[in-house]
Amino acid sequence: MKKRIGVLTGGGDCPGLNAALRAVVKTAMTKYDYEVIGFKDGYKGLVINNFIRFKPGDVSGILDKGGTILGTSNRDNPFHFMMKKDGVTEYKDMSDRVVENLHMHDIDCLVVIGGDGTLAAARDLARKGVNIVGVPKTIDNDLNATDKTFGFMTAVETATEAIDKLHSTAESHHRVMILEVMGRNAGWIALEAGIAGGADVIVIPEIPYDIHKIARSVLQRKNEGKSFSIIVVAEGSRPIDGEPVIKKSEEESHDSVRFGGIGNKLAYDIERLTGIETRVTVLGHLQRGGRPIPYDRILSTRYGVAAVELAHREEYGKMVSLKGNEIVSVSLDEAVGTLKTVPPDGELVRIAKSVGVSFGD
Amino acid sequence: MKKRIGVLTGGGDCPGLNAALRAVVKTAMTKYDYEVIGFKDGYKGLVINNFIRFKPGDVSGILDKGGTILGTSNRDNPFHFMMKKDGVTEYKDMSDRVVENLHMHDIDCLVVIGGDGTLAAARDLARKGVNIVGVPKTIDNDLNATDKTFGFMTAVETATEAIDKLHSTAESHHRVMILEVMGRNAGWIALEAGIAGGADVIVIPEIPYDIHKIARSVLQRKNEGKSFSIIVVAEGSRPIDGEPVIKKSEEESHDSVRFGGIGNKLAYDIERLTGIETRVTVLGHLQRGGRPIPYDRILSTRYGVAAVELAHREEYGKMVSLKGNEIVSVSLDEAVGTLKTVPPDGELVRIAKSVGVSFGD
Amino acid sequence: MKKRIGVLTGGGDCPGLNAALRAVVKTAMTKYDYEVIGFKDGYKGLVINNFIRFKPGDVSGILDKGGTILGTSNRDNPFHFMMKKDGVTEYKDMSDRVVENLHMHDIDCLVVIGGDGTLAAARDLARKGVNIVGVPKTIDNDLNATDKTFGFMTAVETATEAIDKLHSTAESHHRVMILEVMGRNAGWIALEAGIAGGADVIVIPEIPYDIHKIARSVLQRKNEGKSFSIIVVAEGSRPIDGEPVIKKSEEESHDSVRFGGIGNKLAYDIERLTGIETRVTVLGHLQRGGRPIPYDRILSTRYGVAAVELAHREEYGKMVSLKGNEIVSVSLDEAVGTLKTVPPDGELVRIAKSVGVSFGD
Amino acid sequence: MKKRIGVLTGGGDCPGLNAALRAVVKTAMTKYDYEVIGFKDGYKGLVINNFIRFKPGDVSGILDKGGTILGTSNRDNPFHFMMKKDGVTEYKDMSDRVVENLHMHDIDCLVVIGGDGTLAAARDLARKGVNIVGVPKTIDNDLNATDKTFGFMTAVETATEAIDKLHSTAESHHRVMILEVMGRNAGWIALEAGIAGGADVIVIPEIPYDIHKIARSVLQRKNEGKSFSIIVVAEGSRPIDGEPVIKKSEEESHDSVRFGGIGNKLAYDIERLTGIETRVTVLGHLQRGGRPIPYDRILSTRYGVAAVELAHREEYGKMVSLKGNEIVSVSLDEAVGTLKTVPPDGELVRIAKSVGVSFGD
Repeated sequence: MKKRIGVLTGGGDCPGLNAALRAVVKTAMTKYDYEVIGFKDGYKGLVINNFIRFKPGDVSGILDKGGTILGTSNRDNPFHFMMKKDGVTEYKDMSDRVVENLHMHDIDCLVVIGGDGTLAAARDLARKGVNIVGVPKTIDNDLNATDKTFGFMTAVETATEAIDKLHSTAESHHRVMILEVMGRNAGWIALEAGIAGGADVIVIPEIPYDIHKIARSVLQRKNEGKSFSIIVVAEGSRPIDGEPVIKKSEEESHDSVRFGGIGNKLAYDIERLTGIETRVTVLGHLQRGGRPIPYDRILSTRYGVAAVELAHREEYGKMVSLKGNEIVSVSLDEAVGTLKTVPPDGELVRIAKSVGVSFGD
Repeated sequence: MKKRIGVLTGGGDCPGLNAALRAVVKTAMTKYDYEVIGFKDGYKGLVINNFIRFKPGDVSGILDKGGTILGTSNRDNPFHFMMKKDGVTEYKDMSDRVVENLHMHDIDCLVVIGGDGTLAAARDLARKGVNIVGVPKTIDNDLNATDKTFGFMTAVETATEAIDKLHSTAESHHRVMILEVMGRNAGWIALEAGIAGGADVIVIPEIPYDIHKIARSVLQRKNEGKSFSIIVVAEGSRPIDGEPVIKKSEEESHDSVRFGGIGNKLAYDIERLTGIETRVTVLGHLQRGGRPIPYDRILSTRYGVAAVELAHREEYGKMVSLKGNEIVSVSLDEAVGTLKTVPPDGELVRIAKSVGVSFGD
Repeated sequence: MKKRIGVLTGGGDCPGLNAALRAVVKTAMTKYDYEVIGFKDGYKGLVINNFIRFKPGDVSGILDKGGTILGTSNRDNPFHFMMKKDGVTEYKDMSDRVVENLHMHDIDCLVVIGGDGTLAAARDLARKGVNIVGVPKTIDNDLNATDKTFGFMTAVETATEAIDKLHSTAESHHRVMILEVMGRNAGWIALEAGIAGGADVIVIPEIPYDIHKIARSVLQRKNEGKSFSIIVVAEGSRPIDGEPVIKKSEEESHDSVRFGGIGNKLAYDIERLTGIETRVTVLGHLQRGGRPIPYDRILSTRYGVAAVELAHREEYGKMVSLKGNEIVSVSLDEAVGTLKTVPPDGELVRIAKSVGVSFGD
Repeated sequence: MKKRIGVLTGGGDCPGLNAALRAVVKTAMTKYDYEVIGFKDGYKGLVINNFIRFKPGDVSGILDKGGTILGTSNRDNPFHFMMKKDGVTEYKDMSDRVVENLHMHDIDCLVVIGGDGTLAAARDLARKGVNIVGVPKTIDNDLNATDKTFGFMTAVETATEAIDKLHSTAESHHRVMILEVMGRNAGWIALEAGIAGGADVIVIPEIPYDIHKIARSVLQRKNEGKSFSIIVVAEGSRPIDGEPVIKKSEEESHDSVRFGGIGNKLAYDIERLTGIETRVTVLGHLQRGGRPIPYDRILSTRYGVAAVELAHREEYGKMVSLKGNEIVSVSLDEAVGTLKTVPPDGELVRIAKSVGVSFGD
């Protein structure tokens, strides 16, 4: 009987998911003559048996498409599975059902493509004896066990293009323009897009900011004849003497109602301190969407092929990972649970400071 | 003595301003051997004598650049000029000063590039005897006296690319994705980007919406197996039984605090009525920025050349305008003061409905 | 019985074909409850009965895709149909077969989307009594009966982006860079992309060039301190004292072997006359491909809806057409056979000259 | 007295040169309070004393611009310097003049940004006692001493976008589309763009191709119902039983006249063997141009900063280099002279084969 691979995509969507899926399906079906079952909408499809059996043509033409043809879900932990019953939301451990369903489908190995949450559940399934292989993806690039996740560089490109666009408005109107980008705990997008876009100030969660230092560098530019400034801020950033700003959608605290997110708070404070008109753009979901750039298409293809190779060699309980230029594998146990944040005195921060960027510290 | 042209750019910045400037300067200096004086930051430069005298190379390489090398300002009406004195803001009629300064600089004709407000001031200056020629620009395409203003199609392209990006997230997550675009009084950007991006629902100020009809069309799509919907909404839209939603930055009314703009209000209502997860992206300043697309580079070049031709023929008090495929001129008297809004039963709305778009009416 | 519409796409592929198809299918099926049959690969599918019956979902997600899901063919005139028999190519009149097949499929009206050749065959089918409606498309914008065809503005954008890219190399290396674009008989792409990209010289078939005038304007720029020039040339251009350059792929004449196309000939002559290093880029098929820009998505959607409206009103033998801002219809008799070329003293050429472009005349 | 840095850019232009220059100037002037002298057009400016003294504002706004504001040259080796005298071209060793000029300008360290040729001359100048630091750039990514050069990923993005565009034409017309990209000795662009664009066949110099194997894989796709194929070929590729195809511009051999480059030769052979219509696009100079993508802006900024750090620490005779994720330095002696080519059995080739790509081997 043919070997069978199962595959699912979990967590927030991200450019490159389809490219990774395509690589898994092509390698498994064409190189190794396996069968491939795709589970829909993350682990949910595994719990409720929503799946497709891939035919070779199913992954044709998806390499450059955003999103995932399998669907995904942000909240579908099989160990804490959200169910609605008579209008009441309950959470239940459905991991035994997952194990049983994998047996029912004769799955020899499950390939799980996802971020920290999805991979943590994969690790726990591995501990229950499931043959599992992980593929890392995040927009935020905050997975500790890999140098890069796919999706990240596409998000950086989207954010950089936004900075490029804001530049002309800032300069023409002599304004401070603030771009708020993703990054609750890690400031990688803000840092790399800020360097690539030539931002004057970069604010990240890892370096709490002193608003007076930011205002000072804006005013200093003005004194040098540069009547505008560009600021990139990660959503999870916070002042040196305060808390991160919770957005109103999450908690209706006084400040959040007043300011929206951190971008709005910064704008309010900078305009107050400098007297220069300041405007905010929140990039939001645009960072997740769109066609993956070649970098991410190549990386996700490498990951997808490598995941099937692990399955082929029966090296289960592992995650594929980029170290330098090499695709290696790490144990799922080590791979999840700790975030990779920006080292405040690391090379990239130092580089940015060398070309004149202020971090407000 | 050589003839002298003055030129300024006023109002919100917009892709194509530099291309129009370049065409004015090149045509005036190279074709007619005029001198060209550029006033900085809209009318403000005319009031306070902040100007440059163009040299031929000054407009090299700016054709594809966003913004305006002359700078601009949203609030610089010379008849109601904002001045700060001892910390107090005053408004004063500085139009006589403008007339005097134009004489001082020996300006034979002033070319004013701007939107409705800037052109209305131009009309009023013309009534005071100033030789003036207008060039229309708006992001919103809401000037009545011309078929198209430059900047608009670039904004439509930016908005359409945003819809393209949101599509993959919407589909992968089975969500409703809402994109809020510019358009306080006129829904042209929402309408054209909505058609170009394949939006399922388009909400514009000219067609007050019934939230139940929008929810119904979202649910109907779900019943047909399409688990996601894309909604484009112009910022000035309003429910059939309510007022436009004022954003909190402008007035701290209860609703605005709660909902932000119309996009947030729609999201709240749709999620409540349909139970489908709904997310909002506010495109904001990204619509003003960036490189003009070829359509706008060509249109603004045609406008810039035509403006100098008007000046050359001493046809003052006029604005250049696109009618069908022809560049014509209209009197500034007729050109300003009435907005061009979307006809609710016009061709474009009918086209959109023919391909299945709901307007919530 | 339900009314039945047939549809096909013919001629060279072009961005917007899928958008037009989508509009035809959506309007016919959803608005009017017609059935829609799509014939594959242009008229060929009508001759050999290769077709699909559209289901509503078949056109989902194709609005922004290049090419045509129905396929197309450059050589499939039903009145002169290419057939291969025992390795010998024959041409045969298959128009009676087409008429018969349309009856067999109970087609009430055939919608033909194509360029001049495809529409000429449509006109001839109409003369044989077929109920037919035409939709114009060309990259070249050379159809006389409409102001714009879809595909053209996307090609202009592709060509303009190429000019933007060549600019930096030209400037850094102090070179003349030549871009050869499509346009055998009409220079519209060269003209509009040349204006949008800020070309220094534009060469089009309608204005035979004097190589000495081109060389002179390159040298004059050098004297003014601009050590580089950008030239855009339409492939069908020719010297004032010579013939168009036939490319080697078409005829192995001496000159063509030596020079390739007109771009290479120009490069050879300019380098010889000016001593400045000159390089050529032939844009070729890149002009046909890719995602349609919003302008073309909207135009093709308007055309597609309008074509079905014509079919609904039983106004056969007509082609939809853009006049100014309005979609109108013209008789197929008038629509085909004469090309729309660039008027050498028209507004666009005059505009280009006003901003300093040389046409070598 | 202030320390003085000299800087020049040499070899073919490449996206990221300006970003590297900006980083050098900002770091030297702002961080270390050095003076910076820029020599024009590569080594030529050093020989003939054509230079500018940088002011802080000179590098503002160039981060995202293609090309180099200093100008460059492909042929300006100071040890073999091209001079024209009375119409005769001579080559002369001008390296002593270079050494003398550097003393005249009081240059403490010369930063040379270039490819293999430019860096080889830098090594030879170092051997003459010049304090020199190298920064690597190539489109081709074929420098042995660094993992990546800037410019490469932008070229890959340009090539991948071209493949994306050719896809729709290939599919609509049932054709084989060939894209010829840069790479005389190393196939990196073809390989990475081919993987990213989903090419069916990739042909590179490192793997001589068997035309029958390529034809077979095209026909096999046809048998599987895929009526089109995409082929990416590096310009320096050659058949297993033949020589590389020299383009006619270089040598007027029989074959080159007939076929142009390798792309044309492949097209001729594939059409002959398969009977499927085949078309070629030669990407050419478009690969060098345009705005650097964020990846290259970041990498060139890191290189530029690191080069000044080397100068600051007086570590001369070295080149900055990327190893994994780290910026390190290597001696110029080791850095130049050997090319980095694609290992025919390396990971990337294996990955490509795993997803079904044929290399014709």
